[in-house]
Amino acid sequence: VRIEVINTGTELLLGKVINTHAAFFGNELFKIGLRIGRQTTIPDGDEIRAALLDRFPHADVILVTGGLGPTSDDITRESVAELLGLSLHRDAEIWEHIQSFFRSRGREANAWNERQAMVPEGADALHNPHGTAPGLYVPAMEGRSPHLFLMPGPPRELRPMFREKVLPKLVSLSGHPAPPFENFKIHGVGESNIAEIIEPRLNGIADLEVGYCCRLGEVDVRLIGRRESVEAAAAVVREAFAEDIVTESEDTIEKVLIASLSAAGQTLATAESCTGGLIASTLTDVPGSSAVLLRGYVTYSNESKAELLGVPAAMIAEHGAVSEPVAAAMARGALERSRSDHSIAVTGIAGPGGGTEEKPVGTVYIAIATRGGGEPLVRRERFATDRLAFKERTARAALDLLRRRLRGFV
Amino acid sequence: VRIEVINTGTELLLGKVINTHAAFFGNELFKIGLRIGRQTTIPDGDEIRAALLDRFPHADVILVTGGLGPTSDDITRESVAELLGLSLHRDAEIWEHIQSFFRSRGREANAWNERQAMVPEGADALHNPHGTAPGLYVPAMEGRSPHLFLMPGPPRELRPMFREKVLPKLVSLSGHPAPPFENFKIHGVGESNIAEIIEPRLNGIADLEVGYCCRLGEVDVRLIGRRESVEAAAAVVREAFAEDIVTESEDTIEKVLIASLSAAGQTLATAESCTGGLIASTLTDVPGSSAVLLRGYVTYSNESKAELLGVPAAMIAEHGAVSEPVAAAMARGALERSRSDHSIAVTGIAGPGGGTEEKPVGTVYIAIATRGGGEPLVRRERFATDRLAFKERTARAALDLLRRRLRGFV
Repeated sequence: VRIEVINTGTELLLGKVINTHAAFFGNELFKIGLRIGRQTTIPDGDEIRAALLDRFPHADVILVTGGLGPTSDDITRESVAELLGLSLHRDAEIWEHIQSFFRSRGREANAWNERQAMVPEGADALHNPHGTAPGLYVPAMEGRSPHLFLMPGPPRELRPMFREKVLPKLVSLSGHPAPPFENFKIHGVGESNIAEIIEPRLNGIADLEVGYCCRLGEVDVRLIGRRESVEAAAAVVREAFAEDIVTESEDTIEKVLIASLSAAGQTLATAESCTGGLIASTLTDVPGSSAVLLRGYVTYSNESKAELLGVPAAMIAEHGAVSEPVAAAMARGALERSRSDHSIAVTGIAGPGGGTEEKPVGTVYIAIATRGGGEPLVRRERFATDRLAFKERTARAALDLLRRRLRGFV
Repeated sequence: VRIEVINTGTELLLGKVINTHAAFFGNELFKIGLRIGRQTTIPDGDEIRAALLDRFPHADVILVTGGLGPTSDDITRESVAELLGLSLHRDAEIWEHIQSFFRSRGREANAWNERQAMVPEGADALHNPHGTAPGLYVPAMEGRSPHLFLMPGPPRELRPMFREKVLPKLVSLSGHPAPPFENFKIHGVGESNIAEIIEPRLNGIADLEVGYCCRLGEVDVRLIGRRESVEAAAAVVREAFAEDIVTESEDTIEKVLIASLSAAGQTLATAESCTGGLIASTLTDVPGSSAVLLRGYVTYSNESKAELLGVPAAMIAEHGAVSEPVAAAMARGALERSRSDHSIAVTGIAGPGGGTEEKPVGTVYIAIATRGGGEPLVRRERFATDRLAFKERTARAALDLLRRRLRGFV
């Protein structure tokens, strides 16, 4: 099945909004063994006709986003009907949904909104619980047009519709069920390292596709193919990276940590210098984190390290604020003063200034303390990158060190 | 000048990487009065030939990214030369640059890298200080091909090259100098509100284009056109949003705040509940923030609000942790205990749980205290959105409230 994507939206071409649709579709399609052959972005308005005609001969399926709104340059629905010679009729159920959507917000649907209830003959509406415009599925017409899926542009509306309504149809169009799929989230090992280690061992496995998706300090390894092949490959990955696998789901590391601490009834405190609160903020992105994260200290100044965490001024004077003893003292201070079960502390040099020969920009000490666990565990790392990426990598490395500690690996 | 973009890169279609190129180009081109007509993403490899031939007749300029690397599926350079019947020759200067790039990293350039020094006849190389592959400019060939700019895919390499080498050529191709341009960053007013207020007053101004770019809680208003028109429009914007304009540059609000506090020799502390450290983290994204931000308190639990900030337990019991008196007490506590000149405090309900009839999910109190400034200033806001967007909007609103306080507007 050759799939193409057409995104309509002037804002996507003016730099107002970053186009995340292709990445979203790519990720979702990979899981059912399909991929995007080409993606095209065009402005709102007339260009949709030319773009559809251009791409009709090259695709079995076209996913179209945007142009279903109520304004005059939203003409995807009408353009498709016109190109294919299909009449439009008002769907009573959709019109009712649109009217009640507006009523529930104390407003009235108008004639522009009524256009959103129009459905080309032979097309199926795709329900949109998160907005007014339904999606539309227009089946392929032999020798004329591929299968067309028209979906709203806002990701909040598009994503659930794609997952719930479109993916199952694509699975059935592809003629085979969604193939077995495994996803591993791995921390602390680089993409090329992972490939070097597993690729030779996966080479012998037939009908297997391996994908990598890497973010700062984190790599997703995705396996897809025949069931036995995926299982054999998954065993290789599990064996090679037993301690590095954060999860076999698509959860974030912060979600994994909050879930495991929460299940154990344990609590956490953070003490951050160079990350400036990013570790605490990342943890609090997870609903329910308030039961786990008791408090966070952002101790940027030396004085605050002393006052809030009890780091001795003499220790800072002797070893420097970025040092192993200070990281350990910060972790101990946060643990004791918050009476939490675990603490994370980081101190480092985010740059661009402040580096020395011995401790260049990017140097960071990460410490984990655990109630009754003896001396804090301290690791020195170096993330030689820009300030923002340094903060992000340090935060992820700190969360990962806590994960390893909780699992008993360090 | 009709400009199209072709992005090559399998990773962009597999969901491994979000395509930020179109948004980057769109933003940069807007400033010189140009825009993108269409953007196409294709996988690495052979597809580049078909995509170029498809789009040649429709464009005056095509910006191509990716496919200049050293591996076997990087064939943009060779495909262009072949399609246009141009021979390739090795450029001595580029080859020397590539070899020294590798030598400086203790490695040797190989035959694959040597391909990166090949230049089609008649093309100009575009120097790449941040990587090995230079960009290439292939001038239009009458009746055959538009102007082609081939650039490396990594944003770190692409962006400076585009700004320094490509934009000036596009200005000269467009036949008119970069038009006058003004950018306003406005906080606390929605895009449609801004449009409603200024559009009627801008309607009478000839030769003016107005662009909006909106992020969470923040809108860029961009004016471009004839000098007198831009000046007249800028005066309208300044008058309408005198207190709401964060900056007329493209700086972030955190950068503006750190610069102004730093210039005044003043310091800051934060006390965060629902944002979980995001305000402190945002401020510390700015180099030099260590001179301004003394410390941050992340007081998620009631106990930590009492212990770290001196918020009376009875006050929390009486008014609730999310209340005006508690926000004010948090701000006072942070100010006094850190001995800073200003403090920011926030307490709210990020959701999804925890809302009540009186204080629904999304309710937040933001407080600013200033040394010698009397009672803290407290504002109640409601950001009814998802947890992450709530945190982001609250953080931006808090920073903006401090900006208004520092400027004497509140």
